Amino acid sequence: MCELLAMSANVPTDIVFSFTGLAERGGVTGPHVDGWGITFYEGKGSRTFKDACPSSQSHIARLIKSYPIKSETVISHIRQANRGCVALENTHPFDRELWGFNWTYAHNGQLTDYKEKFALRRFRPVGDTDSEMAFCWLLEQLVKRFGDERPGDMPAVFAYVASLANDIRALGVFNMILSNGHYLLSFCTNNLCHITRRAPFGKAKLIDTEVVIDFDKETTPDDVVSVIATRPLTGNEAWQIMQPGQWQLFCKGEIVAGGQFGAPDAGA
Amino acid sequence: MCELLAMSANVPTDIVFSFTGLAERGGVTGPHVDGWGITFYEGKGSRTFKDACPSSQSHIARLIKSYPIKSETVISHIRQANRGCVALENTHPFDRELWGFNWTYAHNGQLTDYKEKFALRRFRPVGDTDSEMAFCWLLEQLVKRFGDERPGDMPAVFAYVASLANDIRALGVFNMILSNGHYLLSFCTNNLCHITRRAPFGKAKLIDTEVVIDFDKETTPDDVVSVIATRPLTGNEAWQIMQPGQWQLFCKGEIVAGGQFGAPDAGA
Repeated sequence: MCELLAMSANVPTDIVFSFTGLAERGGVTGPHVDGWGITFYEGKGSRTFKDACPSSQSHIARLIKSYPIKSETVISHIRQANRGCVALENTHPFDRELWGFNWTYAHNGQLTDYKEKFALRRFRPVGDTDSEMAFCWLLEQLVKRFGDERPGDMPAVFAYVASLANDIRALGVFNMILSNGHYLLSFCTNNLCHITRRAPFGKAKLIDTEVVIDFDKETTPDDVVSVIATRPLTGNEAWQIMQPGQWQLFCKGEIVAGGQFGAPDAGA
Repeated sequence: MCELLAMSANVPTDIVFSFTGLAERGGVTGPHVDGWGITFYEGKGSRTFKDACPSSQSHIARLIKSYPIKSETVISHIRQANRGCVALENTHPFDRELWGFNWTYAHNGQLTDYKEKFALRRFRPVGDTDSEMAFCWLLEQLVKRFGDERPGDMPAVFAYVASLANDIRALGVFNMILSNGHYLLSFCTNNLCHITRRAPFGKAKLIDTEVVIDFDKETTPDDVVSVIATRPLTGNEAWQIMQPGQWQLFCKGEIVAGGQFGAPDAGA
């Protein structure tokens, strides 16, 4: 499968600590050696670094671990290929522009019998993954529902995406992160958790490598930073485990909306 | 203004040498200090590195200068801001997906009175530049002309883009590079040149910094590599200067189509 990592913060924050833990799982403490990627939003703009080689060995991942990029919203992914070969075009996160936003998306899981559901016209996959097809389909549905003009109520847009994600859950495992830079949506099928750090800050210790950080020295008392991950990255903090069918919408580090779907209709 | 750099090659080739020269113009030998970016195509996939700081000082540019990424098609840009503030979202190259291709684009020049012409619906700018608006408009016209299904005749698509680029020339200076990964189009208003290197290869010396390369040691006899730039990057080679209204379509290092437009209709 794969592993996901994401961050939503109320001040530009670097993700070096968390990414250092995740990157170990790409070949050292985990089997996710088929590529990795990370997207940083900085204001309205975003940039994605990706590589089709293991994150534990990547020159570019080494840069990300040593060069703090301050961002309010981050999405990262390490890949263990199932659908689609090991190639740059199959490496998450994927991104598309809609309504003048860069949308960024990453998926953990595997879908079956999805090609019929994911009929596409305006957004097309560049690679061969079920993940990118699902992303394109989600965006197609947004245009069908909300039209070509940017909607005023973005939380309603993300709530609609969550309902669509629950439909996709009928096709398999669909743990998913989606952001337009300002909001960040997490949707859980089976493996996703989060932690929100705020004052008083303490020390945190990575599970996957010998790194300890004292957040009290890295933050101000007003900082609020949420981190979402497939599995907890630190061993001494209380991560909240998400439930199947649960979604959470983050904005500036806080959960601003959420909900819980029942099992999807298998005929959906 | 800005400077452009692009490459089309018949084998995956690194652009470290040329980028090293270009990056100097972002703060050392040139005034283009308002950001830089570079896109590498690797097969169907692509990845873009960008920074809103000067290329001569950027940590990420240092990585690009020291870590050879092999690519058949590259587009790079260093920015001196005119329209739009210094920010990541205003940093070239820009990219959008259409027909399952990642399209990458960079522009050198400045347009006036463009907002009326560039009425947009499906493709919207994320930033505030005339350049990104022009890119979105070009893609809108492609959908209007060719529809939602990928056209079979891609050279015809690029020839149409060249005619649209000539329309845009009525609004100001429009030197432009566009690629779908396989083909690479250059369109000249006033400053663009190219060189095609093939056997027998020789030595080349950068103008902007003390670097010499012996291409004979870096290549095989079958390699064909074209480099396009705003101004020549080497001092000992014969760069071909493009004419106003001229366009060239590159594929695997060779020019496969091209043409020459007259002055655009000022009322276009």
